[in-house]
Amino acid sequence: MSSPTIDFANAVAGVVPGTGIDPDRLHGDLAARFRDAHAAVTARRRAGEMGFFALPADRDLTVRTGAVAATVAPRFESLVVIGIGGSALGTAALRDALLPPAWNELDAASRGGRPRLHLMDNPDPDSVAALLGRLNPARTCFNVVSKSGSTAETMAHLLVAWTWVESSLGPGGPRERFVVTTSPGRGPLRKLAEDHGLLALDVPDAVGGRFSVLSPAALFPAAVTGIDTGAVLAGAAEAAARCSTPELLRNSAGVLATLLHVADTEMGCPVHVFMPYADRLRGLAYWIQQLWAESLGKAVDREGRPVESGPTPLPSFGAADQHSVLQLLMEGPRDKIVVFLGREVPERDVGIPERFAEEPALACLGGHTLFDLLDAERRATAEAMRREGRPNLTVMTERLDAHAVGSLLMLFQIAVVYAGELYGVNPLDQPGVELGKKLTFGLMGRDGYPRPEAPRSDSRWRV
Amino acid sequence: MSSPTIDFANAVAGVVPGTGIDPDRLHGDLAARFRDAHAAVTARRRAGEMGFFALPADRDLTVRTGAVAATVAPRFESLVVIGIGGSALGTAALRDALLPPAWNELDAASRGGRPRLHLMDNPDPDSVAALLGRLNPARTCFNVVSKSGSTAETMAHLLVAWTWVESSLGPGGPRERFVVTTSPGRGPLRKLAEDHGLLALDVPDAVGGRFSVLSPAALFPAAVTGIDTGAVLAGAAEAAARCSTPELLRNSAGVLATLLHVADTEMGCPVHVFMPYADRLRGLAYWIQQLWAESLGKAVDREGRPVESGPTPLPSFGAADQHSVLQLLMEGPRDKIVVFLGREVPERDVGIPERFAEEPALACLGGHTLFDLLDAERRATAEAMRREGRPNLTVMTERLDAHAVGSLLMLFQIAVVYAGELYGVNPLDQPGVELGKKLTFGLMGRDGYPRPEAPRSDSRWRV
Repeated sequence: MSSPTIDFANAVAGVVPGTGIDPDRLHGDLAARFRDAHAAVTARRRAGEMGFFALPADRDLTVRTGAVAATVAPRFESLVVIGIGGSALGTAALRDALLPPAWNELDAASRGGRPRLHLMDNPDPDSVAALLGRLNPARTCFNVVSKSGSTAETMAHLLVAWTWVESSLGPGGPRERFVVTTSPGRGPLRKLAEDHGLLALDVPDAVGGRFSVLSPAALFPAAVTGIDTGAVLAGAAEAAARCSTPELLRNSAGVLATLLHVADTEMGCPVHVFMPYADRLRGLAYWIQQLWAESLGKAVDREGRPVESGPTPLPSFGAADQHSVLQLLMEGPRDKIVVFLGREVPERDVGIPERFAEEPALACLGGHTLFDLLDAERRATAEAMRREGRPNLTVMTERLDAHAVGSLLMLFQIAVVYAGELYGVNPLDQPGVELGKKLTFGLMGRDGYPRPEAPRSDSRWRV
Repeated sequence: MSSPTIDFANAVAGVVPGTGIDPDRLHGDLAARFRDAHAAVTARRRAGEMGFFALPADRDLTVRTGAVAATVAPRFESLVVIGIGGSALGTAALRDALLPPAWNELDAASRGGRPRLHLMDNPDPDSVAALLGRLNPARTCFNVVSKSGSTAETMAHLLVAWTWVESSLGPGGPRERFVVTTSPGRGPLRKLAEDHGLLALDVPDAVGGRFSVLSPAALFPAAVTGIDTGAVLAGAAEAAARCSTPELLRNSAGVLATLLHVADTEMGCPVHVFMPYADRLRGLAYWIQQLWAESLGKAVDREGRPVESGPTPLPSFGAADQHSVLQLLMEGPRDKIVVFLGREVPERDVGIPERFAEEPALACLGGHTLFDLLDAERRATAEAMRREGRPNLTVMTERLDAHAVGSLLMLFQIAVVYAGELYGVNPLDQPGVELGKKLTFGLMGRDGYPRPEAPRSDSRWRV
């Protein structure tokens, strides 16, 4: 049960030609800078600002989540999570990593009698109509997840799903089939739960949407589908403990934050490519993308001074994207640093048979396994990038079990709040999305929100 | 049957505050520059370099593809496409756009008796073992797609699948169940097809992998699953005709290429965000990402001079990613231009019922539709970005039918070869991926490929 390790040799000057971090700085100014960032995070954490740290030890929350999951799991053949952004990406990360692939295509026995898991995130009528069209209302549970309890897309989906259940099963139908996950004690969703006697779970006040993966926001759907949420939390707790030291070179979250901050601000690498070599880490990569983009993409710093900061997180997937973005990573502008994610040992493997060995392109494959090939490609790509002077790091876990996935989730959350301090910004807010929300409400005719005057459509600028 | 239009008002100086293209240049230097690019593309096309232009009119290829698809479709319950990169992304783009959502979760009747469609692209043992575990070998067809006929991942999957079929059905099993799509007349895959009497389809020599979506590489799986490939090709042909003029402001591919090239090279916007507001365009966005990254990410120009060029294509998905990357797009560094993709009219829509209207957050939703909300979010986001001085364009189609999807595919292919001329690079090669391939072969022990000496693992640089 080891936590993830970070190998950053390929980002060190002298190893990666023409660029890289002077390793002495890791004992010098960067160590000092991290010590300050660590102190600031520790202070904010003590002040109650960063609730995600406390989630693995929140026994009441965990017990309550498990109890509600236990009442729901046996009664339904489908669980639909209605949520978007931070209320969907954590669930998708856990689903991809820890449920068998194509879970929804398995029959009930192969799912151990657990429900299918669907996400209703985007308000796209094609997707929503198709989803409802293949669900049985009597056998479907809807979990409505919104920290604020008023997210427009989530509320729209709630109205659609509630009425869909009611029209089939009558006015008592929804009460048995809707579970809400929202702030304790306030918001429209909380009120709806109280008015209708719905099962309800809490996202603690100090836990923001994109830091809610270890709260009921994602752990409830995980528990319903049979994921070992206890092991996820244990892995997270272990990573938090290992990432609690102010000593840079003993703190993997600190090293990750420091190296990526230096890459952006000193090495000319604002593009951070997160590139797992494991299909099961697809959801994690998109979850990291949100965590990085919303936490670090800020107009102003903590003192309100304009900074317009933030690296661009680019999820990419090995080995497949060696046939897509790798050409750009190898030969294009030197504005990127790659964070590879790999594992030492696969949970299962597939042998490549020795056939058609008269073809050299096939002969070298037979007798190996698919993991041999996938892992050789990861190592070869990291080494090829190094030789071309393209800096990269590798985050490795021993296995990809629930404990390791919990560790990764906590590692990246801690890294991003350290990075927030290094950038000098508040990693917990997202003020930039408000204008678009207001303009949407205006276009939807909400009282008090004027319909935006857009520039008159001009045929000169259309082709 | 209209082709896509591009509205670029929000990238024009005077409309988007503080940045934008001087519109007079579209009649001046940029028009002249495009005229040269157009002439160069026309010359290369005539010289036979750019085979994708000719695919919509290649009647022999189309008839052959349809005939093979007709023999395959009724015999199988699953089609597995074994391919990676350009041999998978086009199929995924067509699947996402034109098959009903969650096609593989539908029963046979809802699929019109057509096969399920699976992609075996990444050599990840978790995915491959899970896929084979839920397939019936007798009722599964494998379509092995590789232009070169020697792609390592594809060859490994071929060996796995071939032996899996044989072990269940005997030595005659594979012959009836494998269809190959590869270069005519050469390569290990072609030889295998000839040796074993397999059905075979051609990717014409002048058609590169990432330009093969309108060839049998993607049209065969599309035809097997019942997509109207004739309409896709008709849409592509119409777009090609509309994008054939050297007059910049009448050529939508030219405008797209010119604006994005200027954004990268003159406006400080190397990050090109491709952001559809339609779940059905997810696959298209990843297909565009490959097209942009591999075609434009180049170390040297046509004359061999070092350039290290190429924008970073970042797929993003509205409205969901308004809760993920939008914060960065609105407030972070001004190094991005967004290409929104939308449509005028949805194929289907879902009404939002008027319920719980005492809550203001819900009252403004009822009586609208999900498409109203999705489309208001697209327009509001484009307008919010404009107000913040963040340039953006919008590619619109009237509908998202097979004709429109074909038009989009051709529009972006033509745009990228124009962009190649504007950057001065060869958009058809991908020399940067060779080193990683060689090192992989070395690690796999292939004769003649030395095992790479990586720097000795150094515990100082691991945490």
